[in-house]
Amino acid sequence: MNLPRTRVLSGIQSSGEKHLGNYFGAIQQHIELQHEFPGECFYFIADFHALTTVHDAAAMREGVVEVARSYLALGLNPDKALLFRQSDVPEVTELAWLLATVTGTGLLERGHSFKEKVAQGLKPSVGLFLYPVLMAADILVYGSTTVPVGKDQIQHVEMAQDMATHFNQTHCAGEPILRRPEWRLSQTPYVAGLDGRKMSSSYGNTLPLFASGKPLRKMIAAVATDSTPLGQPLDPDKCTVFRLLSLFLQPDELERVGGWYRAGKRDGQPFGYGHAKQLLAERYEAHFAAARARREELVANPQQVEDVLTRSAARARAVARDTLDRCRQACGLR
Amino acid sequence: MNLPRTRVLSGIQSSGEKHLGNYFGAIQQHIELQHEFPGECFYFIADFHALTTVHDAAAMREGVVEVARSYLALGLNPDKALLFRQSDVPEVTELAWLLATVTGTGLLERGHSFKEKVAQGLKPSVGLFLYPVLMAADILVYGSTTVPVGKDQIQHVEMAQDMATHFNQTHCAGEPILRRPEWRLSQTPYVAGLDGRKMSSSYGNTLPLFASGKPLRKMIAAVATDSTPLGQPLDPDKCTVFRLLSLFLQPDELERVGGWYRAGKRDGQPFGYGHAKQLLAERYEAHFAAARARREELVANPQQVEDVLTRSAARARAVARDTLDRCRQACGLR
Repeated sequence: MNLPRTRVLSGIQSSGEKHLGNYFGAIQQHIELQHEFPGECFYFIADFHALTTVHDAAAMREGVVEVARSYLALGLNPDKALLFRQSDVPEVTELAWLLATVTGTGLLERGHSFKEKVAQGLKPSVGLFLYPVLMAADILVYGSTTVPVGKDQIQHVEMAQDMATHFNQTHCAGEPILRRPEWRLSQTPYVAGLDGRKMSSSYGNTLPLFASGKPLRKMIAAVATDSTPLGQPLDPDKCTVFRLLSLFLQPDELERVGGWYRAGKRDGQPFGYGHAKQLLAERYEAHFAAARARREELVANPQQVEDVLTRSAARARAVARDTLDRCRQACGLR
Repeated sequence: MNLPRTRVLSGIQSSGEKHLGNYFGAIQQHIELQHEFPGECFYFIADFHALTTVHDAAAMREGVVEVARSYLALGLNPDKALLFRQSDVPEVTELAWLLATVTGTGLLERGHSFKEKVAQGLKPSVGLFLYPVLMAADILVYGSTTVPVGKDQIQHVEMAQDMATHFNQTHCAGEPILRRPEWRLSQTPYVAGLDGRKMSSSYGNTLPLFASGKPLRKMIAAVATDSTPLGQPLDPDKCTVFRLLSLFLQPDELERVGGWYRAGKRDGQPFGYGHAKQLLAERYEAHFAAARARREELVANPQQVEDVLTRSAARARAVARDTLDRCRQACGLR
């Protein structure tokens, strides 16, 4: 099988509904990449990985489908990018074993997230310890060249590079089989959560991507601000609402709102956090209105989502099968 | 799928030619069990495991085939016992991942062979660390009830019991899916190696099972004995040759040979280690003569061996597929 010059690979957490931080931190880039590398973006929904934390079958199934719906609603084009369940390509677990036999435990003990757990005095599960090996298999089995990452995921790609090298050196005397992947640091804006810290499910400070109406306004009303009285000057650079607004407003518009903040006035009327929050709710809702409608359509048509997952998996699996067959051959398996 | 009351499972090391210690320590029991539990003995040749040490594709392939030839030559009946490549049932690597997510690293760190390596100051590979998880998957995927073991392998079965329990508790609210396996300690004779220590590939003191003629006589000639001159009384209980003879001789015959030892004489003629060695070579060769001939036939008919492996794998895989499907369902995978 001839591999394309560039193949993009990314894994998507399958657990929980997607939030604003996910959108600006990853989903948006994933969708843009389909235009840069049409046909060569492989996105898998990481249900095998999720098993380390999700122990409820219904939640697992619904989590995966919700991710797929979200991506499709937000513009993922299944003709340009594959979107599939990790577990629909079980070949990755087999490649993970092959990689495990050429990988030292020391490499995994140096893993950030593993070290973090141990430092907290926790005994991680074997699944968590092995996480980087399965991740490497996910990257390598598709001949991926390009893995869009945040800073904290660079190490995973470096580990995959190491494992590819070890495998090739151990088993592929002549021609290397596993292609060396490179990480590509995504330029993503900082997305503040409701409490001002980085938005993250683990902080419980998220805004669900498809929230709207009253629930959305209530959540935005809860964004932490200081107690400056209405009409007094505000510092936009210290305001979480302003930070969130910056994600939705054009630069000139943002500049104008910054002026309202600093003046404590808008068109001669007092301007305060409440007004900023109202503006945020409007823009948030408008920004995702079309996607929200498409998502509702997909909720009503589960088969459509399933078809995308199935078709994508079939193509991904064929690529994986080819890589694995060559690896097996090189190892002396049948 | 209805599971039988008893299912026997054993893994066979795929590397290297089998020696006398393997025969009396495992192969003989495996073959006897096919009569006790016809149709329910699952024997896999552990090529996935061998990857932790075998890094030569040709040696890997030949090792597996040689094991299969040996078993068939020694009396394994493929209608009564399955004999298949571990890697022909890749489902085990997937089940291994599922088990890894419900297993603590502490359990694996308590593994004997892992602890041994660490005590020697070695950094084991991830594959070696994971060994008990893949082993557990091999046991559990076939619904095995009975695992014939030597003392040093009891822990592996206990680990598989733990993992089955963890999986069932985590994912199978109602009915457990993974069956609890039990170990069955094999009653095996002590097989001394050429140097008097236990016969083991790692000591380099083995007698290849199918050796014969001059090479066999030369190897037996090398068995360590003391320097008592010919005709002097010998102590059979301290003699490695006598120990080896005990594997081939009936009790009354052995008693008679013991008399020759103690007298240093046989029928009035001097009796020494050389005579004992000659007797051992004769009996050794006779004991395996029929098997050696069958093995030669199989060398000439590689397709026959391949057919057994393929047919066995198909049946084993169907069982594995069924177990894995139920596990996937319970986890919320598709």
